Amino acid sequence: VWEDAPVNEVDVVSKLTELGYELPTPTPPLAAYVPCVRAGDLLFVSGQVPMVDGEVVSPGHLGDDVSVEQGREAARRAAVQALAVIRGELGTLDRLSRIVQVTVFISSTPDFAGQPQVANGASELLELVLGEPGRHARAAIGVAALPLGASVEVAVTAQAS
Amino acid sequence: VWEDAPVNEVDVVSKLTELGYELPTPTPPLAAYVPCVRAGDLLFVSGQVPMVDGEVVSPGHLGDDVSVEQGREAARRAAVQALAVIRGELGTLDRLSRIVQVTVFISSTPDFAGQPQVANGASELLELVLGEPGRHARAAIGVAALPLGASVEVAVTAQAS
Amino acid sequence: VWEDAPVNEVDVVSKLTELGYELPTPTPPLAAYVPCVRAGDLLFVSGQVPMVDGEVVSPGHLGDDVSVEQGREAARRAAVQALAVIRGELGTLDRLSRIVQVTVFISSTPDFAGQPQVANGASELLELVLGEPGRHARAAIGVAALPLGASVEVAVTAQAS
Repeated sequence: VWEDAPVNEVDVVSKLTELGYELPTPTPPLAAYVPCVRAGDLLFVSGQVPMVDGEVVSPGHLGDDVSVEQGREAARRAAVQALAVIRGELGTLDRLSRIVQVTVFISSTPDFAGQPQVANGASELLELVLGEPGRHARAAIGVAALPLGASVEVAVTAQAS
Repeated sequence: VWEDAPVNEVDVVSKLTELGYELPTPTPPLAAYVPCVRAGDLLFVSGQVPMVDGEVVSPGHLGDDVSVEQGREAARRAAVQALAVIRGELGTLDRLSRIVQVTVFISSTPDFAGQPQVANGASELLELVLGEPGRHARAAIGVAALPLGASVEVAVTAQAS
Repeated sequence: VWEDAPVNEVDVVSKLTELGYELPTPTPPLAAYVPCVRAGDLLFVSGQVPMVDGEVVSPGHLGDDVSVEQGREAARRAAVQALAVIRGELGTLDRLSRIVQVTVFISSTPDFAGQPQVANGASELLELVLGEPGRHARAAIGVAALPLGASVEVAVTAQAS
């Protein structure tokens, strides 16, 4: 059964609930684009800026006014939003084969070097709630600034079954 | 017919002309790489720095010496260049199935938060000239600096039919 | 034979040796992710920070404490690491069809504009050791900071045969 259904939505939602998250309604794009495009069995999810109730979570810069723990939590939430977008695209997470690639952009001062710890917020959450299919290739990048002053933006490529 | 030819090159060129653009000869790569690689039906277009007559359009940083409107125009032009590269790869835009993903890198001061408005220059142009097949997943990222001092660089993934 | 085996591992290792490199044991991920994910015939390699003997090569920022030549060498080494990851994934580089896309992130001061020269370290090495299949689409991006204070991080997408 693993081959056909590596991800089980009921389990995913249950694990997210244990962690204190629910799958949100996908955040509408901030501008003239769409949340997700499917090409063959690949899903390209638009960059997710972590939002709660219309407000950016922990805006600012790592190395300055945002702590590593705040950044990790922002990355976690952005990863949850990416799952919500994937569910919106596929109808159900049961059709998600695996997370392929995650790029975590992190607003950073020039001397901040802890991008991997921040990005782990997203990576660990995906592995925790999806299991093996949640393990992905990753790049963590420290950038000058992000939309709406966000500290983290997470871009995800996934594969549908 | 939509299924087989979602993009019509004559229409695209006509709409670009209305907007004041022509499809340029693809800008040669700045260095040791190629403008586009096709893998299966996916096209990976090299990052486009907006150029006119061998000069970078609106070099500098958003939040400092480049206005949002200048950045939008730079993003528009980079998107047109990406279309030119795709046409060069496919022979004709009639074989373009859709734009899949657009990443807009924007040279930004640390306090500039308007990356989505700048990136819309690229996104809105693609939708305007290609219609539905121009709608894409997107990430907008504020970076420290770009090649040749450019304010915008646009990377595009597309799908061929 | 070209169609079936565009890349020959013995040749690649021989050319790397001439250049003074060996294919290292893939650097373990810095955190909760995997070195490479395969989706169909595409390989997504995690961002490579250049490391030698557990130390980052030439940490710092271009435009400040890292020279263009040091950056080029760091990019070269990161590209070699990406090849090592691809070999680890495929068992042998003989199964590598081509390098598709390379994104070179370069820690840069806001006024540094030589990202293409730095990124050429990676691009030229890939072309030199792989030949035509080493030629790729590319983006070079100047960023605020990278994991472990690295000056360069290289993300690669490749195609398996």
